[in-house]
Amino acid sequence: MSQSQIAQLMDGTSLARRIVEEAAVTAANISRRTGTSPCLATVLVGEDPASVTYVRMKRARCAKAGIRSRHFALPAATTTAELVDTLTDLSGDPDVHGILLQHPCGPHIDERAAFEAIAPEKDVDGVTMRSFAEMSFSRPGFVSCTPGGIMRLLAEYDVDLAGRHAVVVGRSAILGKPVGVLLLAKDATVTYCHSRTADLSAIVREADVVVAAVGRPRLIRGADIKPGAVVIDAGYHPGNVGDVDFDTARTRARLITPVPGGVGPMTIAVLLAQTVQAAAEQLGTEHR
Amino acid sequence: MSQSQIAQLMDGTSLARRIVEEAAVTAANISRRTGTSPCLATVLVGEDPASVTYVRMKRARCAKAGIRSRHFALPAATTTAELVDTLTDLSGDPDVHGILLQHPCGPHIDERAAFEAIAPEKDVDGVTMRSFAEMSFSRPGFVSCTPGGIMRLLAEYDVDLAGRHAVVVGRSAILGKPVGVLLLAKDATVTYCHSRTADLSAIVREADVVVAAVGRPRLIRGADIKPGAVVIDAGYHPGNVGDVDFDTARTRARLITPVPGGVGPMTIAVLLAQTVQAAAEQLGTEHR
Repeated sequence: MSQSQIAQLMDGTSLARRIVEEAAVTAANISRRTGTSPCLATVLVGEDPASVTYVRMKRARCAKAGIRSRHFALPAATTTAELVDTLTDLSGDPDVHGILLQHPCGPHIDERAAFEAIAPEKDVDGVTMRSFAEMSFSRPGFVSCTPGGIMRLLAEYDVDLAGRHAVVVGRSAILGKPVGVLLLAKDATVTYCHSRTADLSAIVREADVVVAAVGRPRLIRGADIKPGAVVIDAGYHPGNVGDVDFDTARTRARLITPVPGGVGPMTIAVLLAQTVQAAAEQLGTEHR
Repeated sequence: MSQSQIAQLMDGTSLARRIVEEAAVTAANISRRTGTSPCLATVLVGEDPASVTYVRMKRARCAKAGIRSRHFALPAATTTAELVDTLTDLSGDPDVHGILLQHPCGPHIDERAAFEAIAPEKDVDGVTMRSFAEMSFSRPGFVSCTPGGIMRLLAEYDVDLAGRHAVVVGRSAILGKPVGVLLLAKDATVTYCHSRTADLSAIVREADVVVAAVGRPRLIRGADIKPGAVVIDAGYHPGNVGDVDFDTARTRARLITPVPGGVGPMTIAVLLAQTVQAAAEQLGTEHR
């Protein structure tokens, strides 16, 4: 197989770095003008190792970008009501500009109730029903971070979406559903597939853009990819495996995100950018 | 062509009548128990003849079902701020249980701002961002009336949606978008097509269920219909023409909604049912 048939990689690491650098400049300007640096509250219930790692990474990136973070580590036995109280308090705390509830929170927590306790203007992770509706209706507001990151990647690589068929595999509230509405807002024809879809391969084969966001390792194989398609892999599984079988998919796709280094870094970059934007809005200074 | 190849009609008139009869029974129970009959506020800006007719029809159906209606006819020159004030007042008026803003309101009105002034518990037309998010996340709440009516029709005719491919043509905020999320909640694979879709016919030909909600007369032709598909026509144009070319589509479909007498009557039925439900909830009596 000749080199020309191998897909170009969509470099999320580089783009994320640029977005974070811009956010850092804005954060510094905010701090200089207002005497207050942007602040993200991170909330974690329990001690799930992956979640602990994710929160630590996010806080480390904040620190490098001049964004303060205040961490709230709640015991695993925290009730929904207690979690809602914490998030309500943070929503009312003028020193907190953005709120991140690391999820999943565990089966005993009503996650939707928790998300809804986050004030819309601090919903920098884009998890509230209000943020979802704003994305759906192309209104200003914070986007869900992974979907927002995917859209930034598509824009960076000049992927034309208008009239193209985008197939989203997965329909979660913070990934599949919002990325679909954002693609629709860019005039793509959008298909939502999921675990109940009858003939997934046949539908994916029609896609000009595939977004794999279903959480099943290597579910999408190269044979499912239309030659020349753009393949976005939002999955992450142990061993640097995504929802797409990278080695076979890259021989058919035109553009593809690697795992890691594709969608992953974009998620955090959008979180930081939106935290800085929230701080700018709440502190009444200009931004971007 | 033999009779067996002609689609069965989905009789919205009969089903709507049954739903309204049930709503009337509930309305009577509410009146008897509380001394207050359910009340729908109807708000109309200007005197567009079609809108005047629609509101008159809705109020007449209310009256027959024992639902009071209070009509607010605002002049065509009404501003968004004035309309928002009216809707905010009605949202706070304990004698009003449901609010219908007849739309379109005219180009000078920010319709979204107006819709958002409707209290969620009175949004019996299912037009607020909150109602949209609730539909999207399969939560309790009022559905948009036409999408809700379509789902009731599909259920009435035992149309199995799980895993089937539903193609929605149109993406308006109160029709295409919400019917798609309701179909997705029933485990259909859902494709949104619209004016920018590259090859509409090819996509519609893959559909097990087609929902035409695009507002273009006879856009969907029989040749676009997969034999045995279910065809829902949510369009209405002068001369009893829908978005589907009925005469050719019915020779391929298994089930099809006529125009009129399909989706149209269902919209009003759902409005009435939801008004009664809202009254029951606000007056603290049981319902359904």
